[in-house]
Amino acid sequence: MKVLILNEKDLRTALKDSNPIDDVEQGFKKLTLNEAVLPGIISLEIPEKKGEFHIKGAYLQGSPFVVFKSANSYYDNPVKGLPSSSGLFFAFDSDTGFIKALMFDNSFLTHVRTGISGAIGTKYLSNKDLKQVLIAGCGTQGRFQWEYLKKVRSIKKLKLWDIDPKKAEEFQNEIKAKDKIDVSVVTSLKDTVPECDCITTVTPSKKPFISLEWISKGTHINAVGADNPDKQELDERIYGIADVIIVDRKAQCVKFGETHHAIENNIIKEEEIDGEIGDVIAGKVCGRTSVDQITICDLTGVGVQDAAIAAFAIKKATEKGLGTYADIS
Amino acid sequence: MKVLILNEKDLRTALKDSNPIDDVEQGFKKLTLNEAVLPGIISLEIPEKKGEFHIKGAYLQGSPFVVFKSANSYYDNPVKGLPSSSGLFFAFDSDTGFIKALMFDNSFLTHVRTGISGAIGTKYLSNKDLKQVLIAGCGTQGRFQWEYLKKVRSIKKLKLWDIDPKKAEEFQNEIKAKDKIDVSVVTSLKDTVPECDCITTVTPSKKPFISLEWISKGTHINAVGADNPDKQELDERIYGIADVIIVDRKAQCVKFGETHHAIENNIIKEEEIDGEIGDVIAGKVCGRTSVDQITICDLTGVGVQDAAIAAFAIKKATEKGLGTYADIS
Repeated sequence: MKVLILNEKDLRTALKDSNPIDDVEQGFKKLTLNEAVLPGIISLEIPEKKGEFHIKGAYLQGSPFVVFKSANSYYDNPVKGLPSSSGLFFAFDSDTGFIKALMFDNSFLTHVRTGISGAIGTKYLSNKDLKQVLIAGCGTQGRFQWEYLKKVRSIKKLKLWDIDPKKAEEFQNEIKAKDKIDVSVVTSLKDTVPECDCITTVTPSKKPFISLEWISKGTHINAVGADNPDKQELDERIYGIADVIIVDRKAQCVKFGETHHAIENNIIKEEEIDGEIGDVIAGKVCGRTSVDQITICDLTGVGVQDAAIAAFAIKKATEKGLGTYADIS
Repeated sequence: MKVLILNEKDLRTALKDSNPIDDVEQGFKKLTLNEAVLPGIISLEIPEKKGEFHIKGAYLQGSPFVVFKSANSYYDNPVKGLPSSSGLFFAFDSDTGFIKALMFDNSFLTHVRTGISGAIGTKYLSNKDLKQVLIAGCGTQGRFQWEYLKKVRSIKKLKLWDIDPKKAEEFQNEIKAKDKIDVSVVTSLKDTVPECDCITTVTPSKKPFISLEWISKGTHINAVGADNPDKQELDERIYGIADVIIVDRKAQCVKFGETHHAIENNIIKEEEIDGEIGDVIAGKVCGRTSVDQITICDLTGVGVQDAAIAAFAIKKATEKGLGTYADIS
């Protein structure tokens, strides 16, 4: 028996010139329709080594694969000149349980599915015609947000902000080299945010940097950065003026997403969350119903996204004849 | 970066002529001494396919590896001519979190560590001089029990029993071909059990087949078969006459081990469990203190055994230059 082995290069080649947005959408939709199995996760922590392992998995009905992902973080690795994050995806045949593929993605697949979730939030919740878009946070994930955002909306003006303006400039130069778009770096969020109708926040910030006072009618916000209880990007009072609040996974967002700060500070009650993004995709929840509404999509990352992107990558890699095979018989 | 890939053949060669019993003992001991990290497990079930995935992991302080194992069961596989069980071990560098080895063991490592646990139960709890030993259950695991049992005790007489006497005869012939021992097949447990001072039960039985009335003073019993709440091998009343009750993991044994039947039927209280096998190894609990005592060791399988056997196998495989390497950089 042979197992397909895909490294990061293979996976980047597999996904080149392809669009997995529909597949990730289907993952969210299956979760809503109870057509997904999403078990608990394993967290193994080694405090004395500042190391932790998180394993999660999911099965989407009809998929040829059951997918698990190990995401490992060693916070002292950079001191040794090593990346802090590592891990792998492993995919089993959903009809036999046999291992079929191992993907050493160096976080690439996770970045892709997270970028796609922002695009899905925008596709289903922002206004169709956008005057000006802001990406706040110009690290790796900011790039993935842009990569998929431009596939779902025709964007005329893009503003980039980072706490380190040099990072924003680097990103601006990359975009100028490949995309025909009016892109510029901003340093004042106070001046920029009021003119934006679509904002994606994707920073590791632990204190809010988008103020209530700056938000205009009709704005959509994707809150991507907060994936643990300490992180926060939005003034929690924005939840108080939001007309539509959508999350990727309610059980997570009330614990460690952006949304949990709004609940903890009594700005909203848990019941005021309008639904999960899968509900909107499936048509069970409306989402935006007028151009003036303020909408928020809180994205913390769900196993169904991993299952969807992994299955998509294996399909594309197989079609393109990528990777190597390990004989395990 | 390269990952070591070991298949079942590599692993069998790696472990040939070696003795991992000490390593597995150390695993149990570290668990007792709070020198192990043993997180919860993931169970992902797909009822419509009669398939299930169980992932567990452990870290033993001082080990070069953090080890996880996926154990997958598809109960309709045999209808397709396929084995119902599959899975793999994966080992990460405990200093960086990077993946180091993948072991496609076809359950071999699990069989080894389970066989070893019976040997450890016997080593720490049975009398030193054994007149006659019984292995009840002559499937694959019965063979692994024998393989390691003979390393911890000098055994003069071995009796084999299986619900299917042909299976016991096959096993007998295998033993005769390689071990110098007085081995024979028995069909009457009623006649055999009273003359045995060490009994290992290793069947998938759902009803007890070892009666209270047959147990002699001084007998030690390793109960290995019951690893879910429906399975039972021992008349639960044996717990009532047992002088020493040891389990591998209390939290498991009171839920789905042999012990849970004795507790559910009010034969013993949970507090009457004398300790875990790691407590005995570490000298925190005495175990047997006289030749006449009846002792039970309930073995359900613990992640520390997996971590210990995987690290041992990687060490031996590396020393012997086994396996292949996959380039994942």
